Amino acid sequence: MSGRWRAEVLVRLKEGVFDPQGAAVEKVWRQTGHVGVEAIRLGRLVDLWLEAPDAESARRQAEELAGGLLANPVLETYTVRVSPGEEG
Amino acid sequence: MSGRWRAEVLVRLKEGVFDPQGAAVEKVWRQTGHVGVEAIRLGRLVDLWLEAPDAESARRQAEELAGGLLANPVLETYTVRVSPGEEG
Repeated sequence: MSGRWRAEVLVRLKEGVFDPQGAAVEKVWRQTGHVGVEAIRLGRLVDLWLEAPDAESARRQAEELAGGLLANPVLETYTVRVSPGEEG
Repeated sequence: MSGRWRAEVLVRLKEGVFDPQGAAVEKVWRQTGHVGVEAIRLGRLVDLWLEAPDAESARRQAEELAGGLLANPVLETYTVRVSPGEEG
Protein backbone atom coordinates (compact mmCIF):
# COMPACT_ATOMS: atom_id res chain seq x y z
CA MET A 1 0.00 0.00 0.00
CA SER A 2 1.44 3.40 -1.02
CA GLY A 3 1.86 6.19 1.52
CA ARG A 4 2.54 9.88 1.65
CA TRP A 5 6.05 11.04 2.46
CA ARG A 6 7.62 14.43 2.93
CA ALA A 7 11.15 15.07 1.68
CA GLU A 8 13.08 18.14 2.83
CA VAL A 9 15.75 18.88 0.21
CA LEU A 10 18.49 21.36 1.18
CA VAL A 11 20.55 22.70 -1.74
CA ARG A 12 23.85 24.46 -0.91
CA LEU A 13 26.72 25.93 -2.85
CA LYS A 14 29.73 23.62 -2.74
CA GLU A 15 32.49 24.50 -0.29
CA GLY A 16 34.86 27.01 -1.88
CA VAL A 17 32.25 28.42 -4.25
CA PHE A 18 31.87 32.14 -3.51
CA ASP A 19 28.38 33.18 -2.32
CA PRO A 20 27.87 36.84 -3.35
CA GLN A 21 24.44 37.03 -1.72
CA GLY A 22 25.71 35.68 1.58
CA ALA A 23 28.65 38.08 1.46
CA ALA A 24 26.30 41.01 0.86
CA VAL A 25 24.13 40.07 3.86
CA GLU A 26 27.29 39.64 5.98
CA LYS A 27 28.40 43.16 5.06
CA VAL A 28 25.07 44.76 5.95
CA TRP A 29 24.80 42.85 9.22
CA ARG A 30 28.33 43.91 10.25
CA GLN A 31 27.49 47.51 9.46
CA THR A 32 24.37 47.24 11.59
CA GLY A 33 26.27 45.88 14.58
CA HIS A 34 25.66 42.11 14.35
CA VAL A 35 29.22 41.25 15.32
CA GLY A 36 28.79 37.64 16.54
CA VAL A 37 28.09 36.41 12.99
CA GLU A 38 31.26 35.18 11.30
CA ALA A 39 29.90 33.91 8.00
CA ILE A 40 26.60 33.54 6.17
CA ARG A 41 25.83 31.30 3.20
CA LEU A 42 22.44 31.24 1.50
CA GLY A 43 20.89 28.12 -0.03
CA ARG A 44 17.55 26.69 -1.12
CA LEU A 45 14.97 24.63 0.70
CA VAL A 46 12.52 22.48 -1.27
CA ASP A 47 9.76 20.56 0.51
CA LEU A 48 8.32 17.72 -1.55
CA TRP A 49 5.25 15.58 -0.78
CA LEU A 50 5.61 12.24 -2.51
CA GLU A 51 3.53 9.11 -2.99
CA ALA A 52 5.75 6.06 -2.28
CA PRO A 53 5.43 2.56 -0.78
CA ASP A 54 8.10 3.20 1.91
CA ALA A 55 10.62 5.74 3.22
CA GLU A 56 13.50 4.24 1.22
CA SER A 57 11.74 4.59 -2.12
CA ALA A 58 10.57 8.09 -1.17
CA ARG A 59 14.21 8.95 -0.45
CA ARG A 60 15.36 7.51 -3.79
CA GLN A 61 12.69 9.47 -5.62
CA ALA A 62 13.63 12.71 -3.83
CA GLU A 63 17.34 12.13 -4.48
CA GLU A 64 16.62 11.63 -8.19
CA LEU A 65 14.61 14.84 -8.34
CA ALA A 66 17.21 16.76 -6.32
CA GLY A 67 20.15 15.55 -8.43
CA GLY A 68 18.35 15.88 -11.74
CA LEU A 69 16.24 19.02 -11.36
CA LEU A 70 16.87 20.93 -8.14
CA ALA A 71 20.64 21.13 -7.71
CA ASN A 72 23.24 22.23 -10.23
CA PRO A 73 25.76 19.39 -9.95
CA VAL A 74 28.69 21.63 -10.91
CA LEU A 75 28.20 24.23 -8.16
CA GLU A 76 25.84 22.72 -5.63
CA THR A 77 25.36 19.79 -3.25
CA TYR A 78 22.10 18.62 -1.69
CA THR A 79 20.93 16.68 1.33
CA VAL A 80 17.56 14.92 1.71
CA ARG A 81 15.58 14.27 4.93
CA VAL A 82 12.48 12.05 4.61
CA SER A 83 9.61 11.79 7.11
CA PRO A 84 6.03 10.53 7.02
CA GLY A 85 4.10 13.24 5.18
CA GLU A 86 1.11 15.40 5.97
CA GLU A 87 0.12 18.29 3.63
CA GLY A 88 2.42 21.36 3.96
CA MET B 1 35.74 30.36 26.40
CA SER B 2 33.75 31.24 23.24
CA GLY B 3 33.33 28.66 20.47
CA ARG B 4 32.23 28.49 16.88
CA TRP B 5 28.73 27.26 16.12
CA ARG B 6 26.84 26.61 12.94
CA ALA B 7 23.12 27.43 12.76
CA GLU B 8 20.99 26.07 9.91
CA VAL B 9 17.95 28.34 9.56
CA LEU B 10 15.07 27.08 7.40
CA VAL B 11 12.53 29.73 6.39
CA ARG B 12 9.15 28.52 5.01
CA LEU B 13 5.91 30.12 3.94
CA LYS B 14 3.24 29.62 6.61
CA GLU B 15 0.72 26.86 6.00
CA GLY B 16 -2.11 28.15 3.83
CA VAL B 17 0.00 30.84 2.16
CA PHE B 18 -0.01 30.16 -1.58
CA ASP B 19 3.44 29.42 -3.06
CA PRO B 20 3.38 30.54 -6.72
CA GLN B 21 6.93 29.35 -7.37
CA GLY B 22 6.26 25.91 -5.94
CA ALA B 23 3.04 25.68 -7.96
CA ALA B 24 4.93 26.58 -11.14
CA VAL B 25 7.54 23.88 -10.54
CA GLU B 26 4.76 21.37 -9.79
CA LYS B 27 3.11 22.17 -13.12
CA VAL B 28 6.28 21.70 -15.12
CA TRP B 29 7.18 18.48 -13.35
CA ARG B 30 3.71 17.03 -14.00
CA GLN B 31 3.98 17.95 -17.68
CA THR B 32 7.36 16.22 -17.82
CA GLY B 33 6.00 13.01 -16.29
CA HIS B 34 7.05 13.28 -12.61
CA VAL B 35 3.76 11.87 -11.35
CA GLY B 36 4.78 10.71 -7.86
CA VAL B 37 5.19 14.31 -6.64
CA GLU B 38 2.00 15.58 -4.99
CA ALA B 39 3.12 19.02 -3.82
CA ILE B 40 6.20 21.25 -3.82
CA ARG B 41 6.86 24.27 -1.63
CA LEU B 42 10.01 26.35 -1.94
CA GLY B 43 11.73 28.04 1.00
CA ARG B 44 15.06 29.53 2.06
CA LEU B 45 18.09 27.99 3.75
CA VAL B 46 20.52 30.25 5.63
CA ASP B 47 23.67 28.80 7.15
CA LEU B 48 25.19 31.01 9.87
CA TRP B 49 28.57 30.60 11.60
CA LEU B 50 28.41 32.25 15.00
CA GLU B 51 30.80 32.96 17.86
CA ALA B 52 29.06 31.96 21.13
CA PRO B 53 29.98 30.49 24.54
CA ASP B 54 27.60 27.50 24.16
CA ALA B 55 24.96 25.91 21.92
CA GLU B 56 22.07 27.52 23.78
CA SER B 57 23.36 31.07 23.31
CA ALA B 58 24.20 30.29 19.67
CA ARG B 59 20.60 29.13 19.23
CA ARG B 60 19.24 32.29 20.89
CA GLN B 61 21.41 34.47 18.65
CA ALA B 62 20.30 32.58 15.51
CA GLU B 63 16.63 32.77 16.54
CA GLU B 64 16.95 36.54 17.04
CA LEU B 65 18.53 36.96 13.61
CA ALA B 66 15.98 34.66 11.98
CA GLY B 67 12.99 36.38 13.57
CA GLY B 68 14.31 39.88 13.09
CA LEU B 69 16.07 39.81 9.72
CA LEU B 70 15.62 36.55 7.83
CA ALA B 71 11.93 35.64 8.08
CA ASN B 72 8.91 37.84 7.34
CA PRO B 73 6.80 37.23 10.48
CA VAL B 74 3.53 37.85 8.62
CA LEU B 75 4.03 35.20 5.92
CA GLU B 76 6.84 32.95 7.08
CA THR B 77 7.95 30.63 9.87
CA TYR B 78 11.49 29.46 10.61
CA THR B 79 13.26 26.58 12.32
CA VAL B 80 16.84 26.62 13.67
CA ARG B 81 19.23 23.68 14.01
CA VAL B 82 22.53 24.35 15.85
CA SER B 83 25.69 22.20 15.70
CA PRO B 84 29.37 22.71 16.54
CA GLY B 85 30.74 24.82 13.68
CA GLU B 86 33.49 24.38 11.13
CA GLU B 87 33.85 26.84 8.21
CA GLY B 88 31.22 26.29 5.46
